[in-house]
Amino acid sequence: MKINTKRLHENIQRYAQIGNVGEIGVERIALSDEDKAARDLLKSQMLQAGLEVHVDEVGNMIGLRKGKKDVPAVAIGSHLDTVYQGGRYDGALGVLAGLEVIETLDDQSIETEKPIALINFTNEEGVNYAPDMMGSHAFAQLGDLNEILSSLSYDDPTKTVDSELRRIGYKGEMKCGAFGVDSFLELHIEQGPVLELEEIDIGAVEMVQGIFWTRYKITGQANHAGTTPIHLRKDAGYAASEAVKFIGDLSRKEGTKLLTTVGTIAFEPNAINIVPQTATFTVDARCVDAEVLKQSQNEIDEFIEDMVKKHGLRLEREEMVRFDPVQLDVRVAGLIEKEAKNLNLSVKRMPSGAGHDAQMMASICPTAMIFVPSVNGISHNINEYTKDLDVENGANVLLNAALTLTKA
Amino acid sequence: MKINTKRLHENIQRYAQIGNVGEIGVERIALSDEDKAARDLLKSQMLQAGLEVHVDEVGNMIGLRKGKKDVPAVAIGSHLDTVYQGGRYDGALGVLAGLEVIETLDDQSIETEKPIALINFTNEEGVNYAPDMMGSHAFAQLGDLNEILSSLSYDDPTKTVDSELRRIGYKGEMKCGAFGVDSFLELHIEQGPVLELEEIDIGAVEMVQGIFWTRYKITGQANHAGTTPIHLRKDAGYAASEAVKFIGDLSRKEGTKLLTTVGTIAFEPNAINIVPQTATFTVDARCVDAEVLKQSQNEIDEFIEDMVKKHGLRLEREEMVRFDPVQLDVRVAGLIEKEAKNLNLSVKRMPSGAGHDAQMMASICPTAMIFVPSVNGISHNINEYTKDLDVENGANVLLNAALTLTKA
Repeated sequence: MKINTKRLHENIQRYAQIGNVGEIGVERIALSDEDKAARDLLKSQMLQAGLEVHVDEVGNMIGLRKGKKDVPAVAIGSHLDTVYQGGRYDGALGVLAGLEVIETLDDQSIETEKPIALINFTNEEGVNYAPDMMGSHAFAQLGDLNEILSSLSYDDPTKTVDSELRRIGYKGEMKCGAFGVDSFLELHIEQGPVLELEEIDIGAVEMVQGIFWTRYKITGQANHAGTTPIHLRKDAGYAASEAVKFIGDLSRKEGTKLLTTVGTIAFEPNAINIVPQTATFTVDARCVDAEVLKQSQNEIDEFIEDMVKKHGLRLEREEMVRFDPVQLDVRVAGLIEKEAKNLNLSVKRMPSGAGHDAQMMASICPTAMIFVPSVNGISHNINEYTKDLDVENGANVLLNAALTLTKA
Repeated sequence: MKINTKRLHENIQRYAQIGNVGEIGVERIALSDEDKAARDLLKSQMLQAGLEVHVDEVGNMIGLRKGKKDVPAVAIGSHLDTVYQGGRYDGALGVLAGLEVIETLDDQSIETEKPIALINFTNEEGVNYAPDMMGSHAFAQLGDLNEILSSLSYDDPTKTVDSELRRIGYKGEMKCGAFGVDSFLELHIEQGPVLELEEIDIGAVEMVQGIFWTRYKITGQANHAGTTPIHLRKDAGYAASEAVKFIGDLSRKEGTKLLTTVGTIAFEPNAINIVPQTATFTVDARCVDAEVLKQSQNEIDEFIEDMVKKHGLRLEREEMVRFDPVQLDVRVAGLIEKEAKNLNLSVKRMPSGAGHDAQMMASICPTAMIFVPSVNGISHNINEYTKDLDVENGANVLLNAALTLTKA
């Protein structure tokens, strides 16, 4: 079975006009007026498709297409919010392909055994309210709901998630956890270059990498570059270079699954002829293997602590983010792989490098993700682009995998 | 023979009030109103001491105390301008100790064989007008005078050195090069920690280090830290860490005279989860040996070029400063050493790590410098401090060395 390609592309184009930036970019921050406009459009489309629309306490939108049996629903979806200066696919693709799946079933007058539910999760990106993946977090009852609802806007600390949900009309009645789900499928762009470079159509995502963010600040002593002998220096910048090189080398070792990135650095006073007094840098470490991630983080900490001690410097260390790897459902990932092959698409099992709503859903039901290629791996950027054919392929895999799950 | 310690300290205190910052700091930028005020005070003191006052085309102030013979003068001095948020000793000490030498000779009614001249050079620091060491540069006829006079203010490009010299009344009549000098002595604070740490009273400076400043910009590709495999990255930040470590290691080799400092660094886009697209950093390399400095600079360039090529990155390189080492006069440095020992002071022959007017004067007459300790090596800073006893010791060595030179 195939989706209606023309209708899906027209719908993606339609949503891309809500908060459009430049030629193809979109900025639709969670709980903003643009988010409200996109939600209103989705609600009208859900109702038009005959879905039973529910909104829960954190604003997650659920459109239920009933099945022959009154059992938990096969859920499909993602999120409509974006980052600042974002793209039209990240999140929206999963929601709009989900809607297309339901409309295709309607076109073919198919009544499924199990119900199907389309979900638009609130605030996946977390750019204006912490934490990210907020809606799925609450849906899976993983966090403290009151804490989430009282989270302050970075933009304007007089606003909370609760006040803005009420303002845009999406403070719902349904309790988080009250909606029963049988399984969850999320179609998403890869946001990386692997599928495109390996010329593979579909990624069957069975795992989400763990992510550790850590900030290090090394403090030495500012000294004149021309008059201070090397043995009298406490050079925070030189020490940082040793650390950054060590961190980079760790993930360049043959066969490691570890990914490390030092993306930010700053020296003080940052003058050409003054030995740096402080050097501050961040480490983004990711791995599919929780043990490897933890051990690597320990190696980094030990190296920096020893090195700083050796040079007579001081160290401050801040744990910014600690997400362990999340195992998705291998059977559901296998189903995705099978459906892709049935459609004559090339497919590979792969981990997700970024975080997704699916990793929260994995804690309450069998879950996996479908990835489609991102041109040049670009995402979180107004130049984010996925080819029309890849969009179509992903939606067809979603359709067939969801349909199979409704029979299981 | 000894100077009048009380008078010297009172005079230092008096000048420190012109542009005073905080407790003991001074900000007296060349050609500013504060510079004019300090010049006016010096001129009045020169006249009061019976000196014949000359001002040359770039505003250098020369106070001539005639000798028995009408021959070129033994010159002593330094500069009254400071950096932004500077100290009271850097420059001013050499001028005011020079004035004290002359007043001491007057007190003792000593008529020297050769004349003595006190010089206050214009704009040694070069913070608002390039180049630095401007006055001594012009005095020694090393640069293009018109170019120097038309140098624009960084602060306000409607102003030139010439316009501001006229504004403050120090555009003089005397041609640069017209004033004959027999030899030159400059008393200065060390601006480094060596004398204090080695508990030595006096540095006899026989050499000024060469200084090379170079800026490197490495360009790779920005990529998502979670989704881009290591072998697909072009990480400008990791490459920079290899370069910074290499540069630091070079001057940490056993027995090298090289000093290297990477004082500034910046990544773009400088985001925690994005592989750096660019990394820009500067290298300050110094050495007393011209060959070692040049070879080391070549080693740095070759390492970075090879490394950048290996990683598939692009490199831009800007030569910001190239000053070769300057040999001062070994005989004059030896005289300083001898006079210090005669005064029962500990003394060591040493190079200067920073640039000074003396290095320009060295091109036209036998020249050397007298260094006194800087507390904690701090300079170019409002916390710059040199102990009263060290000030006194330095001035006494200046007095006796100058006196000996007038007899030679």
